[in-house]
Amino acid sequence: MVIIMNPEATAENIKAVISTIEDAGLEAKVMDGASQRIVGVIGDKRKLGDVTFEAMDGVEKTVAISKSYKLASREFHPRSSVVDVAGVKIGGTPVVMSGPCAVESREQLFEAADIVKKAGAQFLRGGAYKPRTSPYSFQGLEEQGLKFLAEARERTGLRIVTEVTTVEAVDRVAAYADMLQVGARNMQNFGLLKAVGKAGKPVLLKRGLAATIDEWLNAAEYIMNEGNPDVVLCERGIRTYETYTRNTLDLSAVAAVKHLSHLPIIVDPSHGTGKWRMVQPMAYAAIAAGADGLMIEMHPNPAKALSDGPQSLTPEHFERVMNGVKKLSAFLREEQIAPMEI
Amino acid sequence: MVIIMNPEATAENIKAVISTIEDAGLEAKVMDGASQRIVGVIGDKRKLGDVTFEAMDGVEKTVAISKSYKLASREFHPRSSVVDVAGVKIGGTPVVMSGPCAVESREQLFEAADIVKKAGAQFLRGGAYKPRTSPYSFQGLEEQGLKFLAEARERTGLRIVTEVTTVEAVDRVAAYADMLQVGARNMQNFGLLKAVGKAGKPVLLKRGLAATIDEWLNAAEYIMNEGNPDVVLCERGIRTYETYTRNTLDLSAVAAVKHLSHLPIIVDPSHGTGKWRMVQPMAYAAIAAGADGLMIEMHPNPAKALSDGPQSLTPEHFERVMNGVKKLSAFLREEQIAPMEI
Amino acid sequence: MVIIMNPEATAENIKAVISTIEDAGLEAKVMDGASQRIVGVIGDKRKLGDVTFEAMDGVEKTVAISKSYKLASREFHPRSSVVDVAGVKIGGTPVVMSGPCAVESREQLFEAADIVKKAGAQFLRGGAYKPRTSPYSFQGLEEQGLKFLAEARERTGLRIVTEVTTVEAVDRVAAYADMLQVGARNMQNFGLLKAVGKAGKPVLLKRGLAATIDEWLNAAEYIMNEGNPDVVLCERGIRTYETYTRNTLDLSAVAAVKHLSHLPIIVDPSHGTGKWRMVQPMAYAAIAAGADGLMIEMHPNPAKALSDGPQSLTPEHFERVMNGVKKLSAFLREEQIAPMEI
Amino acid sequence: MVIIMNPEATAENIKAVISTIEDAGLEAKVMDGASQRIVGVIGDKRKLGDVTFEAMDGVEKTVAISKSYKLASREFHPRSSVVDVAGVKIGGTPVVMSGPCAVESREQLFEAADIVKKAGAQFLRGGAYKPRTSPYSFQGLEEQGLKFLAEARERTGLRIVTEVTTVEAVDRVAAYADMLQVGARNMQNFGLLKAVGKAGKPVLLKRGLAATIDEWLNAAEYIMNEGNPDVVLCERGIRTYETYTRNTLDLSAVAAVKHLSHLPIIVDPSHGTGKWRMVQPMAYAAIAAGADGLMIEMHPNPAKALSDGPQSLTPEHFERVMNGVKKLSAFLREEQIAPMEI
Repeated sequence: MVIIMNPEATAENIKAVISTIEDAGLEAKVMDGASQRIVGVIGDKRKLGDVTFEAMDGVEKTVAISKSYKLASREFHPRSSVVDVAGVKIGGTPVVMSGPCAVESREQLFEAADIVKKAGAQFLRGGAYKPRTSPYSFQGLEEQGLKFLAEARERTGLRIVTEVTTVEAVDRVAAYADMLQVGARNMQNFGLLKAVGKAGKPVLLKRGLAATIDEWLNAAEYIMNEGNPDVVLCERGIRTYETYTRNTLDLSAVAAVKHLSHLPIIVDPSHGTGKWRMVQPMAYAAIAAGADGLMIEMHPNPAKALSDGPQSLTPEHFERVMNGVKKLSAFLREEQIAPMEI
Repeated sequence: MVIIMNPEATAENIKAVISTIEDAGLEAKVMDGASQRIVGVIGDKRKLGDVTFEAMDGVEKTVAISKSYKLASREFHPRSSVVDVAGVKIGGTPVVMSGPCAVESREQLFEAADIVKKAGAQFLRGGAYKPRTSPYSFQGLEEQGLKFLAEARERTGLRIVTEVTTVEAVDRVAAYADMLQVGARNMQNFGLLKAVGKAGKPVLLKRGLAATIDEWLNAAEYIMNEGNPDVVLCERGIRTYETYTRNTLDLSAVAAVKHLSHLPIIVDPSHGTGKWRMVQPMAYAAIAAGADGLMIEMHPNPAKALSDGPQSLTPEHFERVMNGVKKLSAFLREEQIAPMEI
Repeated sequence: MVIIMNPEATAENIKAVISTIEDAGLEAKVMDGASQRIVGVIGDKRKLGDVTFEAMDGVEKTVAISKSYKLASREFHPRSSVVDVAGVKIGGTPVVMSGPCAVESREQLFEAADIVKKAGAQFLRGGAYKPRTSPYSFQGLEEQGLKFLAEARERTGLRIVTEVTTVEAVDRVAAYADMLQVGARNMQNFGLLKAVGKAGKPVLLKRGLAATIDEWLNAAEYIMNEGNPDVVLCERGIRTYETYTRNTLDLSAVAAVKHLSHLPIIVDPSHGTGKWRMVQPMAYAAIAAGADGLMIEMHPNPAKALSDGPQSLTPEHFERVMNGVKKLSAFLREEQIAPMEI
Repeated sequence: MVIIMNPEATAENIKAVISTIEDAGLEAKVMDGASQRIVGVIGDKRKLGDVTFEAMDGVEKTVAISKSYKLASREFHPRSSVVDVAGVKIGGTPVVMSGPCAVESREQLFEAADIVKKAGAQFLRGGAYKPRTSPYSFQGLEEQGLKFLAEARERTGLRIVTEVTTVEAVDRVAAYADMLQVGARNMQNFGLLKAVGKAGKPVLLKRGLAATIDEWLNAAEYIMNEGNPDVVLCERGIRTYETYTRNTLDLSAVAAVKHLSHLPIIVDPSHGTGKWRMVQPMAYAAIAAGADGLMIEMHPNPAKALSDGPQSLTPEHFERVMNGVKKLSAFLREEQIAPMEI
């Protein structure tokens, strides 16, 4: 950490800052700038607890040097991680997770699962517990939905990924699903992060609506700190001033995460744009940017979907996207067009 | 709801939209525009379930006319509500909630409580469960912190408001506190909203980091829909591109909420700015804008605070702010300078 | 346009709205909703001038149905446009514009131009007039820079694209350049838009820092309305709360623009991310999303660059990116992987 | 400036950074952190020109210590400035600027001017040159509008403030107006900033739609650097994700500017909210936050306004606001409730 003093900071102010650092068993180094002094803190910052230098007299601001997450950081784990979900590997050749936004009935889910399987995707998605803005919107079939998902797995061999929204439901969801999804609205629901960290299943961690990449990786750290290293990140669009799209899909997050972290990252162009027309170009773009996979909403009949119809692909369109994605990722692999040097 | 068709929508497209509306037992009215047709939906939109017209062929977009929240809406409850918290009324003459960000020890809390009481505030705040970005930051004293808060109430007569972060802890916190706080990161933790809606205590609902006013009032609706009408909203700054302040305090939310809802609203200038220097001007501005109260962080020794020191006032500064707030609200009351006609 | 009345709007309020519409020679249609009335306006909205219904009593809000731009709209020009810049076509096979952020010297520019040419790009970019946040930063070589650019064109045959920042400089820049660039900060400098609309040269219109797609297309409309149909749009990142990247590159804008407009669109991953490491993945992503080209900063020696060094590629890295881009666009063309159905 | 090296930076990398600093005649100080080295730059950073350390190998990021603006900074000018506009002082007792968004006719303007004068405001505002998103919207009466404004000054004695949108129009506007307004869309139109810096009239500089406070003060620096010290800032709302209001009025900018700069700052609650209902509470809040004045849109007949009707007050409402503002500022002055210690 570097502490920048005000131009008008007194000798006493600086002495107080130095004492605080030294009292914590750390070393302080003072640098005289043209108009301001700077104090560097040498050693493990955690010894300082939560001392807040910015509240001390004469301090203008502090600048963090080291990152607050460790387990999720590439610095401490230079090789890219591969997460194994019941035999399907995430990290490397892109995987596709697809299915309806919400599980609505056995028939709807089976129909969707068959299409997903036939098109060559590896995961079936579908919400049994739906976080909805209004209490009057459809909230999901809950445990019944989980049972349908498990049946669809039996039927197709697809892996199941589904959202868990409360600590209390973690064990129940973990009993049925292959992978637990933490949704955008719960990215900083720290109790839930700890609970999925102990559940013994890989976790798909969506980026919060207005989460920075730093906060997102800290959320992954919460899960990993409970002993679960199997975290996959999912970029799903962030909230900006633009209203044409439901969210602004931040594909640069793929490159940023690859640089800062060893964890795999996939992209959800359905939530990321909110418009089915934009799913295909954004799916291709995500793969070209180096994403480890995609999550795509597909509904046998989008107009009848109980949620998120406008962003769901029809089965025909989904097949076309799958076809393009397969060709594109094969091309990138064969040509060894690595999108990024880390 | 109004459904706007594409200029190139066919007669079949429009027929399909109309059938969907009529099948739900509602009335459809078609309006021919210069280049596009518009279909109005007459009747209770809830009958439509979650039909998503935007996924139907020929539909360009839909525009919601009625609001999705009812219980929180001023439309259905024209008179401003007053929430009674163990005898202290919120709604009208502004109240002040103050104390440290986190309960750190009995001594620290008692010292803070005495200052808060002496300065004339009505509520003691202090976190026993702290949601923190990093798992390595101080997470709060938990139940021990709640006990200290209850003791501080005995000592001073102040009402206690404190955050609850998990469903599992709701009953425990409700056993000690007079008012349950739902923090910004949990504003759309719907399980938690339902739980505090059943806990039998008034709720302070902070605005989410990137929540629209509409989403915020829908979050209040979740609580009220469980039978708890005692919700107070708290504006605490939203996330924008500006980095000078920790958040951007949206004081226009006070006027917006007063227009759209009957619920009381208070303002937290400490989190809203992240800088102690800005607490005083923003506290005055909030009162002048018509806020029903303030939440202000104060710490006996901000530089030693285990969290959020830079935004905590010293006791001396807090007293000055309290003094100004009292004079200002008395002036506004006497002069009958109503900030807003609703 | 649709006018939504308040639930408490009176018969007089509605009558006043209808009169205003009819007085303008348009037709008004009233629709009775469950709780609110809606008034539709039939006919050419421009007859209304700038009447602002939202200021009339009883009006809650208005909803625009038709778009405010026409010349830039795909609705009125269904086929995608191709812009010819001195024989190089933009729209279809992607083009690449590259070079240093600023023209610094003849040597620097010639060195850059040779590298750009050799790698297979079609355009040389380089700023002679630099809009800089601080008045103390390097502001460009001005006319001398334009001369160096023209010399570099003689030398290499590359087309020249360079920014113009003032109305007064438009003719001078147009005398040297093949394409005039309007920068992000000037996207709503309407005087400049009109001036480049009359300059007789194709225009590259960058998206404003916080411009919506609608505002951007309206800015294009300003240029086209002066008789210049040759506008190419350039997505260069928007301002959001995320600070890891300099801007948030909004690749979904490629798909949005393709849907709403017939104009070509290219992408600038250098400004869009502000980090050279992210240029390659975002360049590939842009091509896969269907962009008609790229603008990439390259500097013979980024560390010595007088501006924007952190986001400039070295010559070696630029060659790798060009190589990948060429292969990727050939693949997409051969496989007929159209990113989007419009 | 402080340069933070990567953990894996080599001795050569650090040597190169040090050489670059020393070659510029500055001093480099190296600090060894726990995992990373930090290099401090001692001396006047301007000697470095635009060297971009972030493009050098081994450099993670740089942190600016000193601000890029000087003339606008309170650091170099501790006393708050007062700007004299034809005898009316801005800085201290709040002033009010009011009038219609656009000058529409002599009658409309005179009617407005009489109301503004009678209510006790000091400035008449009204646009003669209107920057409009669409080229088809009303663009202003141009020079005829300026003449009406000058006539209204003769009639009422009010000072005239009006927007100038092009370099070419600066002299013309300066010939009629007492104060030149630079609008939000032109805040980084650097040619215009330089031109108004030479025009010999005080300047009202509105904050850009998505400008940081740092960029805003740098824009003021452009004007002051041309020899014009008479700059008044105007907060008018920033662009955020919230759509209920037209912009998000950032009242904390008042406190931030007061701390960072000596320049006066006023607030425009009309553009800041886009809703006339919110003008009154936000006007009071601005005064309580310490603003040096207000800019408020008022139209004799808002429903007939050629632009921005929804945010214009009626004459009656304007009088009420003026009355409240006068009482409130007198109260704050008498009670010596300084909103902020700088």
